Amino acid sequence: MTDTLKHLQKATCIATTNIAFVKYWGRINDALRLPMNGSISMNLDSAFTTTTVEFDESLTADLFSLANQPADAKQSARVFSHVDRIRAMAGIQTRARVASENNFPTGAGIASSASAFAALSVATAKAAGLSLPERELTLLARQGSGSACRSVPAGFVEWHYGETNEASFAEQIAPPEHWDIRDLIAITQTTHKEVGSADGNKLVSTSPFNETRVKLAGASLNIIRRAILEKNWTTFGEETEREAIRLHVIAMTSQPPIYYWSPVTLAIIQAVTEWRRDGLEAYFTIDAGANVHVLAKAEDADEVENRLWQQEGVKIVLHNKPGMGAQVVESHLF
Amino acid sequence: MTDTLKHLQKATCIATTNIAFVKYWGRINDALRLPMNGSISMNLDSAFTTTTVEFDESLTADLFSLANQPADAKQSARVFSHVDRIRAMAGIQTRARVASENNFPTGAGIASSASAFAALSVATAKAAGLSLPERELTLLARQGSGSACRSVPAGFVEWHYGETNEASFAEQIAPPEHWDIRDLIAITQTTHKEVGSADGNKLVSTSPFNETRVKLAGASLNIIRRAILEKNWTTFGEETEREAIRLHVIAMTSQPPIYYWSPVTLAIIQAVTEWRRDGLEAYFTIDAGANVHVLAKAEDADEVENRLWQQEGVKIVLHNKPGMGAQVVESHLF
Repeated sequence: MTDTLKHLQKATCIATTNIAFVKYWGRINDALRLPMNGSISMNLDSAFTTTTVEFDESLTADLFSLANQPADAKQSARVFSHVDRIRAMAGIQTRARVASENNFPTGAGIASSASAFAALSVATAKAAGLSLPERELTLLARQGSGSACRSVPAGFVEWHYGETNEASFAEQIAPPEHWDIRDLIAITQTTHKEVGSADGNKLVSTSPFNETRVKLAGASLNIIRRAILEKNWTTFGEETEREAIRLHVIAMTSQPPIYYWSPVTLAIIQAVTEWRRDGLEAYFTIDAGANVHVLAKAEDADEVENRLWQQEGVKIVLHNKPGMGAQVVESHLF
Repeated sequence: MTDTLKHLQKATCIATTNIAFVKYWGRINDALRLPMNGSISMNLDSAFTTTTVEFDESLTADLFSLANQPADAKQSARVFSHVDRIRAMAGIQTRARVASENNFPTGAGIASSASAFAALSVATAKAAGLSLPERELTLLARQGSGSACRSVPAGFVEWHYGETNEASFAEQIAPPEHWDIRDLIAITQTTHKEVGSADGNKLVSTSPFNETRVKLAGASLNIIRRAILEKNWTTFGEETEREAIRLHVIAMTSQPPIYYWSPVTLAIIQAVTEWRRDGLEAYFTIDAGANVHVLAKAEDADEVENRLWQQEGVKIVLHNKPGMGAQVVESHLF
């Protein structure tokens, strides 16, 4: 099969992380990463992963470096098995060198696996000489890390519920320029969180509230999709907050319970609620971690950012606009 | 009717607050204060209200003082309407002087209305010359403030679900000396909470998770009652924590949401969870407020108390044992 190597070689891809307004929390199929409910997100322009994949006939094993350091065995195994999926599609067996870098702290509750597996999928497919439509790339990315599929299309994205691999794809709802809203991420921790979201995901069915949450998420999808299309800020914000709280309800009522929030998280929840009473219409959402994503209209973003910097316990504030989709920035094909 | 005054006059009652292990959160009947689910609690020996009721023919209106100060109009109206209930039962119309005092901060998330209405019910009935069995007193207290009915019997108490006034009474599960467990209350606030539990109670049906919570509370009643009778500390503690979290799940998913926790509350939740990993088997429960009740076995209580005093943001720690029921401590009947 080595003759196909003439058609491929090396590609670099940039993919942003995304913030979900309707969350992915719980799966109906672990192997395929099929979620219990559809989700909606926005790509974040300032938080991204850059990944270079190079197939090299001289290698006897795959190599994976993260931030220029050899990655640990567990991370590497997950990456290599994802590369295997793409090798199988391309009908090749050549080993690859994978180098990945985030421009934000890993494991701090920013969805690093989303940008990582989106970038890995797109770079690997390109380097393997595959020319896949966006929808196929989302299916691939999803199998690496569920929410990664939402980082493939640009802007505002919906990941569909589906009971087969092909049915659970992601697609754009609206491009980044459709609505200039901001996500100010208040980073409250920079060390790895105690319970990763992959583990939290497995516990959802131990929560007695999960069935209700899944139903509610279905309703939230329609409300939030429409609010984005109509640029209805209040409906969008209120529903996004409710949906976020429900993820934490499930986590806190799982067995064993998971408390992702830190005291700082709760202080920000309460501050944002207070700010709204004073007329600053910002809303929060929180993934499986302690960081708080504060959503603001473009004209309020600087004020919100300033207030967040002043909150005790906030280490960094990242200012994000709606971001692009996964992009191949460089490739060498022969 | 003034001739019946010969049979009554003045009585003082002490009643403790109680901490619920299965919570009262939501009502099927607001006027009668009939709860959506039964509940179980323990009286707290160190946190009590002392109330003196004196019927006096020379008065033209009821008077109510709290901590030796005239109480505000809203509090007074609630007290007088409760005294009216008892006057109606006794067939009298004489006005009363009511003086009440708590030995703990009012409105800081300790159930002050529980001890207050238990003491008021028992003192008023006694001063009115009524000789009511304990069960009747619990029905009366419940109409003043739901959880007050649990402060009438001694020790460990169950308040039954019931669809009529008579069916929803409280009774002892076990006397105080049955099981020497402790409740260390970490007081994190000493000002009045933003949303009183009476208002929070009205919002429960706006939470999409309430129906499930009510069902789960029914199961918890059986588990916790049995664990108390069998002195099964682990089962008791684990189920009590789960039940407590569910109250806050309902509050946080009500519309509008209520966040009773403060950052300090969350820090203590996480500390207690951590202590257990280190072998100190304490459990938390949290009412509609920011204070944390940390439950400990008698032999661990001093250690838990010390650790709580060291927690940042904890203002006071109250050390409670299982307490007595509402007691008439002084009465003058003629």
